[in-house]
Order: sequence, then structure tokens, then C-alpha cells
Amino acid sequence: MISKEQFVQAQAQARDYLARAGIVITPEEAANIEVADLGLNELDSTGLELVVYLNTERVCAKELVLFPRQTCPEHRHPPVAGEPGKEETFRCRWGQVYLYVPGEAAAHPMAKPPKGRENTYTVWHEIILNPGEQYTIMPNTLHWFQAGDEGAVVSEFSTRSRDESDIFTDRDIQRAPKVAE
Amino acid sequence: MISKEQFVQAQAQARDYLARAGIVITPEEAANIEVADLGLNELDSTGLELVVYLNTERVCAKELVLFPRQTCPEHRHPPVAGEPGKEETFRCRWGQVYLYVPGEAAAHPMAKPPKGRENTYTVWHEIILNPGEQYTIMPNTLHWFQAGDEGAVVSEFSTRSRDESDIFTDRDIQRAPKVAE
Repeated sequence: MISKEQFVQAQAQARDYLARAGIVITPEEAANIEVADLGLNELDSTGLELVVYLNTERVCAKELVLFPRQTCPEHRHPPVAGEPGKEETFRCRWGQVYLYVPGEAAAHPMAKPPKGRENTYTVWHEIILNPGEQYTIMPNTLHWFQAGDEGAVVSEFSTRSRDESDIFTDRDIQRAPKVAE
Repeated sequence: MISKEQFVQAQAQARDYLARAGIVITPEEAANIEVADLGLNELDSTGLELVVYLNTERVCAKELVLFPRQTCPEHRHPPVAGEPGKEETFRCRWGQVYLYVPGEAAAHPMAKPPKGRENTYTVWHEIILNPGEQYTIMPNTLHWFQAGDEGAVVSEFSTRSRDESDIFTDRDIQRAPKVAE
């Protein structure tokens, strides 16, 4: 759980990154930016900030904000309710993102997993995304990503998000955000 | 059919609008911007320019560029192959868009249909989209849209695009782009 102060500060910081990326959001969206610390209370290293544009039965679109070196930890989207699981495309809009999927491991990966959690990072095939570059993750594929030293803003285009179904390699993680009152 | 010169000019103009909107595309995407005159050869009034980011079996994402007062004419996305038809969300990123769907007609609509084609515009419920604002069109719903005086850049988030299945109210329209060699 993160404190109210951390939450408010992270929202303000995320708005600043979106502005740098030239992305306009409504006042309502700005007030509802999701701050996902994933239950670890290590937001500087593990977590992300999200603006969810839409999430219907068939389509979801979001902006993801990652602070410098902030990491979205390793997870996959399994089949749910007779559907094949979430398919998602990440398109870098600003900054730089290091994305990891199954395949030949990078000899010298650009990202470093958050300290003390190294053993929960198991896929090491590296894709570097600069602004305008994108990559599609098919359902049930393990993946994780980390922003470069400047942070990053990433558009996500996908099928319906069912965050509660995500399976994280790190068993300490809880997807549902909790903020102290 | 539009001429090669018109095509090249429209691509260059679309790149300029995307840059104004702060949207970064790759050189390959820039070279492949789709110029859709919809077979009318009246690109200034009817048509649009598109960057297709992805179009998988389940998800599609595009940027749409509309020049000042350019109109995407009235159409709908019918059920195809046992699926309910395309669902799409338009999110204005830059400029202004006037979007029309079934419902109570606007008394003084902001858009004017292209001259000589007025009788192919039948839905008049008006939604005005400024940057950061969006609207979702459910499958098989008639809709059309026109940019304001500055033009517009609009993100589209949708299920798979099957352009060849679109049903336009104007029977003169052909969706597949043709460029003179």
C-alpha cells in the first residue's frame, strides 16, 4: 500500500510526463490516473502509472507512464472465460523502454530488475523501443519492461484488460491498487 | 483515383499534421501513410489519411489525419464472419472533430456535408471532440465525421478493421485506395 502523499505525488509526476509527450488528457482523466504499486510499496522501482481511455468487452486503450528505471514486473495474461487471454501492443511515445519476452537472452541487457527481486525475472529476450516503435505481445506470453533513464510514455492497444487475472512471476505482487486513507 | 502528385502531396501534408500533434512515426510508417480518397477524387472534401499501427485478428489501432473540413463520409461496420462488426473509439489528439451518429439531430450542426453529396448524410446527432475527448461507436452504427477549420488528428482504437466490408451510404464510394501509376 502506498501513502496518500506518494499517490498524489505520483499522479502529478505522471501528468508531467504525459505533457512532455504532448498527450492531452481531460481533467477527469487527470484526476483518475491509476498509480499501481502492485502491493510492494517500492513505487520508484516497481510499478507504473496508467490512464485508461477505454476498456470495453472487446477493446482497451491506455497510456502507461513509467518513471526513470521504473519496472512493470514479469507477468502474463492467461485465457479467461473461454477467450484466449489479453493481446497487447506497446507503442513508445516518449522516452525509451526496454521490453523482455521469451527467446534468446540479451548478453548485456539494458534493464536491471529491481533489487532483491532478481529471481522473479525469467525472460530476457530484449526489445528496445524508441518513440514511434512498437511490439505486440500475444496472449499468455511472459513479459516485463523497464523505462530508460528519462522515463517513458507508452500507448497500449489491446483486447479487454482483466487485471485481476494477470499472473505475476513474483508471488508478492497484488495487481489491485491500494492507497492509504 | 487520385494522381501520384496528389498522393505524394497528401502524404507530406499528413506527416506535417502528425508532427504538429506531437505524434512520432517511423520512417517506414511515414512512407506508407494511406491516402483514402474513397474513389471520389474529391480528396479536399471527402477522404482521410491513415497510419495503421496494427491490425491483428482482434485489435486495430490507427492515427487518422483529416485536413481542414475534410470529411470521412457516412458508413457503418456490419457483422462479418460471425462477429458483431467493428467497434471503434475516436480520440481527438489535435484540432477539432465533428462526429455524427443516430439520435436527436443538431439544430445548427458545425459540419457541412461535401457539396452535391448532401443526401448521403442521414444521421445528425452531433458530438464535438476537442483534444483529449473521445467517443465510442458500437458495431453497425451509422457515423460520419468532419474536421474543423484547422484539420484534426484522431486516434482510433478498435477491433479488427475489415475496410472491404464497410457499408457507405453514398453508393459512389469505393473503400480500397487507388493511385494512378
